[in-house]
This record gives sequence, structure tokens and C-alpha cells, in this order.
Amino acid sequence: MARVIELYDTTLRDGTQAENFNLSVDDKIKVCRQLDRIGIDFIEGGWPGSNPLAVEFFKQMQGVALKQARLAAFGSTRHFQKKPDQDANLQALLAAKTPAVTIFGKSWDIHVIDALRIELEDNLQIIEDSLAYLRPHVRHLIYDAEHFFDGFKNNREYCLATLGKAMAGGAETIVLCDTNGGTLPHEIPEIMERVLQYRAEQGSEVRIGIHSHNDSETAVANALMGVHCGADHIQGTINGFGERCGNANLTSIIPALIFKMGLECKVGKRIDQLYTTARMVNELANLPHNRYQPYVGESAFAHKGGIHVSAVQRNPMTYEHIAPEKVGNSRRVLISDQSGKSNVLMKAQKYGLDIEADDPLMTEIISQLKELENQGYQYEAAEASFELLMRRALGLHRDFFQLEAFRVMNHKYDLNKSPYTEATIRLYVDGSEVHTAAMGDGPVNALDRALRKALTRFYPSLEDMELTDYKVRVLTGEYGTGAKVRVLVESKDLEDSWGTVGVSVNIIEASWQALVDSINYKLMKDEKGRC
Amino acid sequence: MARVIELYDTTLRDGTQAENFNLSVDDKIKVCRQLDRIGIDFIEGGWPGSNPLAVEFFKQMQGVALKQARLAAFGSTRHFQKKPDQDANLQALLAAKTPAVTIFGKSWDIHVIDALRIELEDNLQIIEDSLAYLRPHVRHLIYDAEHFFDGFKNNREYCLATLGKAMAGGAETIVLCDTNGGTLPHEIPEIMERVLQYRAEQGSEVRIGIHSHNDSETAVANALMGVHCGADHIQGTINGFGERCGNANLTSIIPALIFKMGLECKVGKRIDQLYTTARMVNELANLPHNRYQPYVGESAFAHKGGIHVSAVQRNPMTYEHIAPEKVGNSRRVLISDQSGKSNVLMKAQKYGLDIEADDPLMTEIISQLKELENQGYQYEAAEASFELLMRRALGLHRDFFQLEAFRVMNHKYDLNKSPYTEATIRLYVDGSEVHTAAMGDGPVNALDRALRKALTRFYPSLEDMELTDYKVRVLTGEYGTGAKVRVLVESKDLEDSWGTVGVSVNIIEASWQALVDSINYKLMKDEKGRC
Repeated sequence: MARVIELYDTTLRDGTQAENFNLSVDDKIKVCRQLDRIGIDFIEGGWPGSNPLAVEFFKQMQGVALKQARLAAFGSTRHFQKKPDQDANLQALLAAKTPAVTIFGKSWDIHVIDALRIELEDNLQIIEDSLAYLRPHVRHLIYDAEHFFDGFKNNREYCLATLGKAMAGGAETIVLCDTNGGTLPHEIPEIMERVLQYRAEQGSEVRIGIHSHNDSETAVANALMGVHCGADHIQGTINGFGERCGNANLTSIIPALIFKMGLECKVGKRIDQLYTTARMVNELANLPHNRYQPYVGESAFAHKGGIHVSAVQRNPMTYEHIAPEKVGNSRRVLISDQSGKSNVLMKAQKYGLDIEADDPLMTEIISQLKELENQGYQYEAAEASFELLMRRALGLHRDFFQLEAFRVMNHKYDLNKSPYTEATIRLYVDGSEVHTAAMGDGPVNALDRALRKALTRFYPSLEDMELTDYKVRVLTGEYGTGAKVRVLVESKDLEDSWGTVGVSVNIIEASWQALVDSINYKLMKDEKGRC
Repeated sequence: MARVIELYDTTLRDGTQAENFNLSVDDKIKVCRQLDRIGIDFIEGGWPGSNPLAVEFFKQMQGVALKQARLAAFGSTRHFQKKPDQDANLQALLAAKTPAVTIFGKSWDIHVIDALRIELEDNLQIIEDSLAYLRPHVRHLIYDAEHFFDGFKNNREYCLATLGKAMAGGAETIVLCDTNGGTLPHEIPEIMERVLQYRAEQGSEVRIGIHSHNDSETAVANALMGVHCGADHIQGTINGFGERCGNANLTSIIPALIFKMGLECKVGKRIDQLYTTARMVNELANLPHNRYQPYVGESAFAHKGGIHVSAVQRNPMTYEHIAPEKVGNSRRVLISDQSGKSNVLMKAQKYGLDIEADDPLMTEIISQLKELENQGYQYEAAEASFELLMRRALGLHRDFFQLEAFRVMNHKYDLNKSPYTEATIRLYVDGSEVHTAAMGDGPVNALDRALRKALTRFYPSLEDMELTDYKVRVLTGEYGTGAKVRVLVESKDLEDSWGTVGVSVNIIEASWQALVDSINYKLMKDEKGRC
């Protein structure tokens, strides 16, 4: 039987200490439901003693039935001057009415002296009697040994004595925290060994956990090393959000436990929801996804080099450490300057286009692609443009309109105001001439508006489409404002999102190309849908 | 004496395999100079046998004198059917004329069979004789054992035999690669021990290195664990860029080696340049900085929680694993503007401006700065704009011209041609009206030309000035083409180069602000020079 590891999520408490990561009470409830759904054991909801929003959250959560997860309220040991039953922080913890309570105490002598400003002996006492006071009132009682690793390195005997008090106070789990994130994985085995030995000396069977921070970029490694050395409980956050550089990232820890270390945890059954969970948390916080994120990032199973692509097709194991579907992600083959025939064929298959490797059109598509890439086009983030290019080469493309001319004018006559911007556009749809004009925040915006004005009455579905991102990159830094630019546009409608690209020395022209591709792609997609 | 660790940077080769991370040949040369400046031992520049841009890069680098770093060209072992002296890849490596050459070979039997499709014995032969062929021609010869860790787990004896061939072929360093990034740190000690034992059995003293990928979010940990277990050479990239989830991040590895593991490397002397180096690479690639990045991120030493802030003020060690200044970063206290003031004072001193900390103008400058930063201005890469801002606030600024109006027009009337672009500008210099017009490759280029046409006869030194770079970044991805953009312009004259910034929803307006700042800075600088 594999060892079972308990997972404790602190996205809603330690996670929200991250700069720019904010969640409303409503968002937090949504995150809870999702964490419960996938099988996280404990969800730390907040610190009711220090944060009024946490109080509100715990109140609302009393009406939410969780199936698997147990909610935890977080706080500190009592104030030295207060008896437990008069300590506002401990009382707030009980008022949260959660099945689990976690309190942290000081393990590092320097902190006792410099932060708490009390005697070392007094700190031992408040740890034991805060826990002992809570014990009869809560189902699960967890003790976070703050700064455990720094404390251990500085004063091993005292640090272990604080754990002894937590055992005596009745903690069910004692969590070794690397609060400042300064510990490296090779330091962990010796420390863990001493902790387990101390636990035995105390005749205790308390569960040992680990809580790591990413200041050395080793939070995930430290957590896994902790488990390798005997910890049975891990604290972390979704996507690794947390104070400073973040907490241990559960989206990387969970698949390592299950697929690589042969351990068990409840999430095992729903691990294919990992990708969705990771994206949901970002979406709620309105933050972009980190494309390079292990396991759940967009690039995590993306293959660029031609050699890699053909090897992966023969045997995915050659360049993938796990199968992407296991965590709900998928393989992507990138179109890049290293693109060879095999990349293009895989794409054709994906688009449902019928073409064989030895078709002469294939050679033509590849040479066209190389020429465009030489000019600065890039299709990695612009697959819609790539699909249009292939359809054009295969004669499967329809022109939805014919441009006659456009004009964009920027006129600045007031120093303190942005220029006045106007675009006009003249085009034909099915033989009828359309001529429109529109203002905009800038030249591209004005052009976009004039173009939609012209087309929407012929193609009403354009109403559902919007541009969601616009990126400009100068391709060479050599010719000042005369350099080539590449424009990437991202668009979406009610069902999909897609990227298109344009390249020119003129930013208006490059933007125009990407805009037109985006609209053509949308219309082509709708037409396919109707067939 | 501390052990000396060799650092091998592959930002320019493996790094550029990252999705969205692209560098021009010029950018690559700038990165080289910076890596050389800080003391990186080896810089891998590219794969000349597979990439024409790499050939161009190595050609240009022959004119660049590096002080400390040695440039490396990268490639594979020879093709099985080709003799070394007829193998295009090996010949391209020699043609790159670099002091170091690195070739990779297969360690994992599955790859030999599924990717190379040759016999296991044949693979051993091409490893040895590719290296032996290169050996007399290059100063430093490095062997990358691709998929070493996977190979070891699958067929230990064969995998070690490939290393034996690399030793026999004359490699100076053998690098154990975790190509798929699937290895966890606790697996490393046993594997390293066996490798060192095998090396001894072979009577070899070859240096052992490690090259790790971040697919398990443990690349940094694996590299450090490798060093802990006896490796003396680390391969990685700046900011961890690399295929899929990235390579081992040197900006996290270097401070760990020096400050935490007591080891030595050349970068030790310039480690306070780490922050600048990390940002420079992002700027050149036009990618945003990762604020949560360990050591060099904006949030890495930012303190949000009230308890933490007061503890850090009493004793920084309480919540910081290292002192931020050591790597060129700084502490940020998110609720106070103290750090802002000291920064501004430092800048004033640098510009030769006379202002004291308690001057009421100081408060004004800081609040203006905060307001502008809120709007999206950023002065890190635009110090000229910042100096102008300070001079304006101190009443030390002269207006060299007054704009009345400008107009920029783009007119597209031929589908196959770029739009026709014209700018007109009307302004006053010392009471005389000047009205000019110019064509351009794009709207900003036309505006720049019309502006210079108007000013050069009054200020002939503008002839010596040119724009060298132009970067556009969209600040929010939420409003399509209506989003705010930040434009950074870099300019130079015969003596200096400087950066300026503009922000607006209108790209023409943002570019105009940066252009005008650049010209004002040039004229201000020339005037100072004449005093």
C-alpha cells in the first residue's frame, strides 16, 4: 500500500499575500468548491483575527457544503499578556466555526527576541497552552512551526523544544515552515531525520508536514524532498501564488507525488482537472496564465524544434516527461523557423485538411512558410493566420470582401490632448460598394471600427467577435522608426479565441494584415460551422 | 579553498527554444557582452549546423573581444553515414571558429533506436569519434549527454558506456542532461555517486556538469543538488528561458552557490549586476519581467503584511533570506514611499541637480512620479525622460520649440503595397513659424522626419542623432486595440545613447512623447556641454 499524503491548500490565505493577486469573497468561495471537487484535504480560508474579509468569508462558508475538503481557519499563538479565553485571535478562530484550525508559533529564537520581544521560555508556554486551549473545540488542530528551518540552523535544541510543546499541546500535525524560503533541498534530509528522531524520543506519533516558499526557486523541490524524507502533509498554493516569490506550487507537487513518487493522495482521482483548476484561479484573479508553468502551462508540452517534433510523433516519451492528458493539458506543435514537413502535416490533420506528405502542394506550403518566416512572420501565437495560409495554398479559401482603399488620419492640434484620429474605408462585398468612416482611440482602433461598420450588416456574427489583445514587436533595432514591426492580434467570440499576425515596416499595414486575417478566420469558421 | 564552479550559459541557444522568446543577432551580441562583463565562463551562442542566424551570429562575434567568457558553438555528434570530415554539422562547428565546442550525443537507448534509428553499438562509436575528430581543433571540448537521467534509469550500463566513450574521445567536461525535465532532486545523489565511481573506474578526471530543465519545477534544485553531489559545471539560462517550461535559471543558481553553498564562481565579483542582467535580457526580448522571480523580481523583497514590515525594519533577516542589495535588487515596503525618496535623491546626485531630501519640491517630484507610474510610464529604460521630468519640476528646463499642430496620414489604395504615409508639422522656434512635411515608412517614421526637417536648421547637432530602437508594449490586454501602449525609444549621437518613454491609448501620441523627449534631451545635453 502506497503512503497517503495529505494536501493543505493555502491559496486563499498565504496565496493572497502575493503582490497583484486578489480575490473577492465570492471568488474565494468558487476556489473552495473547485478545490473540494478535485480532492484537496484542507483549505485554509484566511486569518479571521487579522482580516475582516476573512471573517465574512467564513460566515458565508457556513452555508456551503464541502464534500471532501475540510476548511481551516488560520491564526497565531495567543498574545503573551492574554489568557487564551480572552485572546482576540484565538476567539476569532473559534468563531470561524471551521472543522480545522491552524495556528503558527515561533521556532527561531531570533524571532522570539526581535519580533515577539518575550523570553524564550515564555514562547514555549504560549505554544503549548494555545494549542491545549483549542484542542477540545476543533476536529483537526494543526501547528505551523514558523521559520522552522532557519531556527533549526541557528539553535537546534530550542527549535526542537518548540515542536515538543506543540506535541504536548495536542497538535494533530506539525508543519515545518521555511518561511523565508532560504532553504535548499540538500539541507532537508539531515533536518528531517533529526525531527523524526526527536518525535520518537518524545513518544509522539504526530504527523509531520512541510510548508515551503520559493525565494530560492526550490519550494516544490523542498516540499518533495520533505515527503521523500518522511513528511506526510504538504502545504502549498495553486500556481504557487504567495508572499514575495510565492509558496510551493501544488500544481507541480501533485503530479510529482502521484506519477513520479508512487504516493497516494485524494486528488489522484481528479488529477485530470489540474489544468482547469490552475486556469480558473488565474481567471478569477484576472491574471494572465504563465505559459511556461510546469504541467499546466500552454508551453509545457509544446514542441518547437523539428527533430523533437518527429521524435515525439514516433514516441512521446522521447521529449515528454509525462503524458499531457494526465493533467488535462495537451501537446502542441509550434510552427517556427525550425518547422519541417512533420509539423505542417500534424497541423493539416488538426484543421481537417486533406493533404499527404508527398503532395507537391506540401513543398509549396513549406517554401511559402519559410519565405514568410524570413520576412518576420511568426505563427506560434498566430495559428489562425497559419490555417488561412494553408487553406489559400490548397484553394480552400473564400474572399469575404475586397478592399479598395483605406485612409487613417491623426491630427494633433492641442498639446495637451491626444491626436484626433479618423479612419475611412472603402470595400466591396458581393459587388456592392461600402464606404464607412469611424473615429478611434488610435489609428488601429479607428481602422478596426470602420472595417466592422462596413462588414457587420453583411456578416452579423462579427458582432460577437472582439479583439482581446494587441502586441507589437520591432523586429530589428537597427533602423530606428524605420524598422519592421510584427503585430499579433488575439480575438475571441462566444466559443473560441484565435491569434493572427501581420508584418510590415508600417505599423498600420502590419495591424491591418492581422485585423483582416482575424475577420476572415472568424467568417471562415462560421461558414464551416454551418456546413 | 572553496570549490570553483564553472557556469555555462545557454540563453542564446536553448533559451531561444522558449515560446515567445526571440532575440535578433544584435540583441544576442548585447547579451554576450553583458554575460562576459559579469563573469560567465562559457556562452553558448547557437547551433550553426541547423540555424543560418547562428552562422551570422558567430561571424559577427569574431569582431567582438570578450574579456572573460569563452564562446561555444553547439551541435550534435556526426551523422552515422558520414565521416567526420564530411559531416556538415561538425564542419559548421569548426567554421564557427569558437574557443569552445559542445556536442550532444544520445545516452538513452530508446532514443538511439527510436530517434537515430541506429544500433546501440554504432551510437557509441559516433560519440567517440566525433569528439576525437574535434579535439585537436578546439580549445575547450564539452560533451552534453542528452537524456542522461532517463537513460540511466532505463539502462544504466549502456548509459555509462556512452560517458566512457566521451571520456575516450577527449571531452574536457561531460554534462549530464535532464533533457525532458522529469527528474526530481532526491533521485540525484545515487545517480551522481554512480557516475563519479564510474569516472574513477575509467581512470578519468573529466569534469562533470549538469544541465536541467524545469518541467517538474525543480531545475534549479536539480542543478544545485548535482553540485552538492560533485558536479563542477552548471548549464542554465538567464531568467530560466528555455524549451517548454524552461532551463535551470542562472539568476537563482548563482546566488545560491555563492551565498548559501559557500562555493566560488567568477560571477562572484559582479553578482550585484544580476538584477540588471536579468532585466536586460527581458527588455531585449520585449518580454515583461516576472515580478515573482526569486532574487531579481520586483516582489522578491517586497513586504506587504504589517507584521512582516515592522519586523523587517527591526531586523531584515527576520523575513529576508539574503540582503537584496547583494544581487542589485532592493527592498520594497509596499505601504511606504521611503524607498522612492532615496532613489530619486540618488538620481538627482547623478544628474548634478541640487536638491535636499526635505525640499518640498522633492515631495512634488515623488507624487508626480507616482502619478505617472500609475498611468503606465516606466523610467528604468528611459532615464532621459526621467531627468527631463526632474529638471522641469526644478524649473531648469528650456523649451527648444513650441508645437502648433501635426498631422499624420496613411492612405492605402493598392492591396499589394504598404500604405502611403505622410506627416506634416507646424511649430515655432524663437518666434519663427516652421511648417514641414515628410514621407515615411510608417507614421512614426514620417513624424520623426518632419520634425527633424523643421528643427535641424536651428539645431544642426540633430544631424548627429539617430533613433536606434523603438519598442511598443501594450499595457493591458483587456480592451483590444483601444488598450494603452507604452513606447520606448532609444537614441544615440556620437558620444552617448539614451532612452525615452511615452504612454497613451494612441500609439502616435505615445511615440510623439518619446520622440520629443529624445530631441529635448539631446538639445539639453548639447547646451550643458557648451556651458
